[in-house]
Amino acid sequence: MIRVAIVGQGLVALHFEVGLEKLKHNLISDYGVPLRNLLPYKYSDIEVVAAYDVDESKVGKTIYELAKRYYDAPGEIPGTLKDIVVRRGIHLNSLKGLPFKARGREEEEGYENAVWSIIDEWKSLGVDIVVNVMTTEPVEPVGSLQELHERFKAGDLTASQTYAYMTALYSSKYKNAAFINVIPSPIANDPAYIEFFKESRGVVFGDDGATGATPLTADLLEHMYERNRKVIDIAQFNIGGNTDFLSLNLPERNIMKKITKSAMVSDILGYEAPNYIRPTGYLEPLGDKKFVAMIIEYYSFGEYKDELYIVWRVNDSPALAGLLVDLVRLGKIALDRQQYGTVYEVNAFYMKKPGPHGSKIISKYRAYQQLLQWVGIKDPRY
Amino acid sequence: MIRVAIVGQGLVALHFEVGLEKLKHNLISDYGVPLRNLLPYKYSDIEVVAAYDVDESKVGKTIYELAKRYYDAPGEIPGTLKDIVVRRGIHLNSLKGLPFKARGREEEEGYENAVWSIIDEWKSLGVDIVVNVMTTEPVEPVGSLQELHERFKAGDLTASQTYAYMTALYSSKYKNAAFINVIPSPIANDPAYIEFFKESRGVVFGDDGATGATPLTADLLEHMYERNRKVIDIAQFNIGGNTDFLSLNLPERNIMKKITKSAMVSDILGYEAPNYIRPTGYLEPLGDKKFVAMIIEYYSFGEYKDELYIVWRVNDSPALAGLLVDLVRLGKIALDRQQYGTVYEVNAFYMKKPGPHGSKIISKYRAYQQLLQWVGIKDPRY
Amino acid sequence: MIRVAIVGQGLVALHFEVGLEKLKHNLISDYGVPLRNLLPYKYSDIEVVAAYDVDESKVGKTIYELAKRYYDAPGEIPGTLKDIVVRRGIHLNSLKGLPFKARGREEEEGYENAVWSIIDEWKSLGVDIVVNVMTTEPVEPVGSLQELHERFKAGDLTASQTYAYMTALYSSKYKNAAFINVIPSPIANDPAYIEFFKESRGVVFGDDGATGATPLTADLLEHMYERNRKVIDIAQFNIGGNTDFLSLNLPERNIMKKITKSAMVSDILGYEAPNYIRPTGYLEPLGDKKFVAMIIEYYSFGEYKDELYIVWRVNDSPALAGLLVDLVRLGKIALDRQQYGTVYEVNAFYMKKPGPHGSKIISKYRAYQQLLQWVGIKDPRY
Amino acid sequence: MIRVAIVGQGLVALHFEVGLEKLKHNLISDYGVPLRNLLPYKYSDIEVVAAYDVDESKVGKTIYELAKRYYDAPGEIPGTLKDIVVRRGIHLNSLKGLPFKARGREEEEGYENAVWSIIDEWKSLGVDIVVNVMTTEPVEPVGSLQELHERFKAGDLTASQTYAYMTALYSSKYKNAAFINVIPSPIANDPAYIEFFKESRGVVFGDDGATGATPLTADLLEHMYERNRKVIDIAQFNIGGNTDFLSLNLPERNIMKKITKSAMVSDILGYEAPNYIRPTGYLEPLGDKKFVAMIIEYYSFGEYKDELYIVWRVNDSPALAGLLVDLVRLGKIALDRQQYGTVYEVNAFYMKKPGPHGSKIISKYRAYQQLLQWVGIKDPRY
Repeated sequence: MIRVAIVGQGLVALHFEVGLEKLKHNLISDYGVPLRNLLPYKYSDIEVVAAYDVDESKVGKTIYELAKRYYDAPGEIPGTLKDIVVRRGIHLNSLKGLPFKARGREEEEGYENAVWSIIDEWKSLGVDIVVNVMTTEPVEPVGSLQELHERFKAGDLTASQTYAYMTALYSSKYKNAAFINVIPSPIANDPAYIEFFKESRGVVFGDDGATGATPLTADLLEHMYERNRKVIDIAQFNIGGNTDFLSLNLPERNIMKKITKSAMVSDILGYEAPNYIRPTGYLEPLGDKKFVAMIIEYYSFGEYKDELYIVWRVNDSPALAGLLVDLVRLGKIALDRQQYGTVYEVNAFYMKKPGPHGSKIISKYRAYQQLLQWVGIKDPRY
Repeated sequence: MIRVAIVGQGLVALHFEVGLEKLKHNLISDYGVPLRNLLPYKYSDIEVVAAYDVDESKVGKTIYELAKRYYDAPGEIPGTLKDIVVRRGIHLNSLKGLPFKARGREEEEGYENAVWSIIDEWKSLGVDIVVNVMTTEPVEPVGSLQELHERFKAGDLTASQTYAYMTALYSSKYKNAAFINVIPSPIANDPAYIEFFKESRGVVFGDDGATGATPLTADLLEHMYERNRKVIDIAQFNIGGNTDFLSLNLPERNIMKKITKSAMVSDILGYEAPNYIRPTGYLEPLGDKKFVAMIIEYYSFGEYKDELYIVWRVNDSPALAGLLVDLVRLGKIALDRQQYGTVYEVNAFYMKKPGPHGSKIISKYRAYQQLLQWVGIKDPRY
Repeated sequence: MIRVAIVGQGLVALHFEVGLEKLKHNLISDYGVPLRNLLPYKYSDIEVVAAYDVDESKVGKTIYELAKRYYDAPGEIPGTLKDIVVRRGIHLNSLKGLPFKARGREEEEGYENAVWSIIDEWKSLGVDIVVNVMTTEPVEPVGSLQELHERFKAGDLTASQTYAYMTALYSSKYKNAAFINVIPSPIANDPAYIEFFKESRGVVFGDDGATGATPLTADLLEHMYERNRKVIDIAQFNIGGNTDFLSLNLPERNIMKKITKSAMVSDILGYEAPNYIRPTGYLEPLGDKKFVAMIIEYYSFGEYKDELYIVWRVNDSPALAGLLVDLVRLGKIALDRQQYGTVYEVNAFYMKKPGPHGSKIISKYRAYQQLLQWVGIKDPRY
Repeated sequence: MIRVAIVGQGLVALHFEVGLEKLKHNLISDYGVPLRNLLPYKYSDIEVVAAYDVDESKVGKTIYELAKRYYDAPGEIPGTLKDIVVRRGIHLNSLKGLPFKARGREEEEGYENAVWSIIDEWKSLGVDIVVNVMTTEPVEPVGSLQELHERFKAGDLTASQTYAYMTALYSSKYKNAAFINVIPSPIANDPAYIEFFKESRGVVFGDDGATGATPLTADLLEHMYERNRKVIDIAQFNIGGNTDFLSLNLPERNIMKKITKSAMVSDILGYEAPNYIRPTGYLEPLGDKKFVAMIIEYYSFGEYKDELYIVWRVNDSPALAGLLVDLVRLGKIALDRQQYGTVYEVNAFYMKKPGPHGSKIISKYRAYQQLLQWVGIKDPRY
């Protein structure tokens, strides 16, 4: 059994929870789950045991109730989701500036009490994996383990940083656990956290789940590289209507995404190519089905200029939810293998900014081969 | 030195000849040459020693003269191209139905004399590599070596088949040689030819050079597979204004392209996905810069439907010319290594329908890794 | 009251029938109905009183049953559709070559009896408008009235031509009626029919309802014209998965569409621009939501070349059904005004090939102004 | 003769000057000039007599020299452009924040002297038309004529406002003149300026020349309106590599563009539709050939959702230059007709934000009809 606690009960969490139950009941195929049924852990081994949020309209509700309100796919919502009630989590201004009424547990109990009361809950639930899918927050890496401890004591961490810290604490004290960070906050890219997770015999995967245009762009760039085409420029626009796009409208949050994507182009091509790649705007009626537009111009043989245009309508949250079905299982496998700290081979495929800090960004094709090798499975096609 | 004879003095040949001279004189970068300067043979090792065509407006002209007329890139055309005069080649109706005034050497000398007089030319020029870039012709594989010999004797082969046969003959009698077939005619996919080249201590690469939308589609499908996205359908249109599109307007020639592309989708995805992939039309003002439009629809996690649209303006002939800069060098390497018959690792990356017959179509990313390994070079990025 | 008989109970008919009932019951807004509530006749004035088809799987079923099977929109299907039972119509090979089991009334009763038994039905139902939405059929204009009468007597007309003839007969004998032809068959473009309708005090609108890419292309060309941009070329692809695309795969039916679109470019631009505009293929999973891809290249000031690309996902049948909500009302208005024969001002806006024969194709913007003027309504925005 | 002074010797000016000379010498066709040769004034009637800039790298150079440096089209540059030397103009921080070394005449002579010395130049050159094509500047309308006079006296106007003021002054004192403002600064939308031009017996056209995606969007919205399609949302991105995009990267300049485009959607559709329409970014290698990407989602009949995607590669400056060839002639016609103040019929077609203030934005199709009527010419197609 893999016991999962979710941090941030938004659309991604909902798609993960609902999709997982549907998978267990054979109501859907496992499309969008990269490693499908090739892993030793099956879908039925995964159990979501807790979910945390600070949005007053969600705390106290069951996942089933939230799914009724927000989940737009046709078909029944599994009744098993009535058993999970959203708990009040850590806020620390993680929704600051966004139009939600939010209140964190630390505002009721104080920071230290809030932290320990949640850890106690994990202990009694037997949590193995903490999945961080909260809204993008502005944050810098801490750097050194000592400063990390000091800032924790001072309550001077963001919500994501606090949950990651809590997972390491919990791992060292009660049960080996993994923290899976699929938002841009630098956790797996923060040497302080890598060190803390190693010491605590825990695992951290991150950062920033590789969905949407970024992994496709990585593979298109690889395609260009392998033909020695010279990329002249790349422009990529993203616009959507979910909370993530709303939050990226706040400049201090948008900057988080730019940092994530800056190294990819030169790492894969082997040279700097002028680019403009970033989430561009919020347009409410687009909802969760974002619109991506892209141009890649390049020189072909004889220095002729070709132009490639991409337009994409992509359901934003389900794509990330599908990756989580792998990531929670891979987190458990890493714990089983006692591979503490982080696992580059996992991050390289599933993350936009794979930790640890300083890791090269490689094409997803290449990352996929390395992932299969790390897991120890053969590509079923060959 | 690698001595090259070109069959089919069209745009691809022109871009290869002009581009190569410019490369030698450092007038352009080597963009579009996949293995760039990583091979033991350098650009300056390649020499085009003969070019064959049956178009009356080309036979007897120098490449320089033709470049002045058809080559549209700015910059000077190297004067060294004044030394190559287009020779009259084998016709056998290869331009039938197309608006060109054509006359083959066999119409002047008879089939057998024409064949041997060209082979004699190759002998005196010391040809190593014959590159087939003539216009798409309708043709079926021969199948058995015995039938191949009989059909040659009866003069019952197409122009491409005749040149391939001649290359094997030449290879067995005078000098080991390679035939590089980048048009759809099944040569490397014809067991009769593979056997004949093995016997003749020659090499054949083919079939149908992998440029344009096909290799990109292969890699996009791989991208889908690796995320377990379920491809619902694929439609892909191509329209251009060069001779190749003009010829594909003739139904019996268009069918050659459909055969080439039919196996790719199921080989890479592991299941049949409904598709409509084929050259669609001829529109003269588009010239050599064709327009490709594509839709791929797929199911993501939770069976949500996403739509990916591609629009591409791509210079058709230069892309193939760039591959030839590798292929003639790889042909010589295969000869040096006495790897007679064909080399799947080369075909898998450079060809749309890699021989030998029955070979699986794999993603180009995967093929690239296998190619590097066969050549014995390391990816310079890692 | 406007009493409507439908010929061809396919998807367009279904969307018209269901949409109309929903409109009457305020279940949907009137989006896609160009003249909305500006006409003297209201939606509630329209009543579908009969529907004809030859597909054995449809004849004898109610519209309600067919809607349950084929209509994919969410929401309830109005129960009033249980009252209309599909009647067996005229076949005359109108589904030849398509994968449907079809049998026409003429195969049971003979041509003349079939014709008159249907006219009798119209008489007893008090039909005002006959709407032709059957599948595209291969057909040439008849030309002269005398030949039309002779070919009717000989039973040598297509199904569409027969229904049009029957409507004129019915109009002259029983009740003034209008025939609305939204398929490519030349009826309003056939001088024989125009003359027959004038004599019979009936009305015919046609031909080929202006939905999809054609009217948009018309207006984009107008946009180019008004800036004196020189259109270099236009390529337009259409692919879909409904019966109309399936039938257009048959070459003799596809040609009908090419004829329709050939005059538009030069009529609007004032010069011939090379173009490739036609339905391209059938891809079943696309269903009724077709994929259109288009390129327009043009010269701007200084002879700079610009490129405009369009990609469109458009529900094919609903768009035409929306136009029908206007056309049946306009048909009745023309009858009320005794404007017998045809009405160019209506055809010019609603049809791809506006009759009468020889009419110039104008931009839809211009046609819209002329339509408002003919109807006698003011643009509510000004 | 129409004597033109240019303010802002950037790419638009260059394309206007070079293109005009080429037109006069029949080196190019008049593509991109909407009213082509239908006006009483011919191309040869237009003469550029002066050009002003503050960029140190341009002041003192001839147009010919600048064309050699920046104009990228093939073909010769007319030698007549050697006669125009760029004069130092008014700066007033119009290039503030941009990477140019700039110095204004007012920095040398003081504001009042600078103003009058330029007016004197116009007088001696016999200027009829002043064309404002400087870089987008941040500016608010003045509002009242009295305040305008006061702010001029205090030197508290932007560069555009100063030139417009100067044109009115010049018009009242020396020769009736027109100011053509094709940048976003509100001049024709500023009641103070309209009043001043009326008093001064001059003409002002503006604001913000209608090129690029905005007029196309206007006409696409009209196309939607005329079919009663309900627009759900519109997103439109623009990215380019010229100075205008560079300047729009500065937030206070970008805001100028948003204001321009905000009213269009609701004016044409008759309701508010959520939209995100604005210049998005700067990417140097794109140069003057910007990339526009757009999505329009709408409801069709039956409330089915369709999606229209546009991708556009458009030469930015030539498009505006082509409009100028009309605008300078129309300015002279308005002066001839003594139609002082502004002319809505001209602005409605040529401008994104047609003055006077409070004017409704209409589709360009409609505006074209009104323009022809105002000019008094018939559409040559009908």
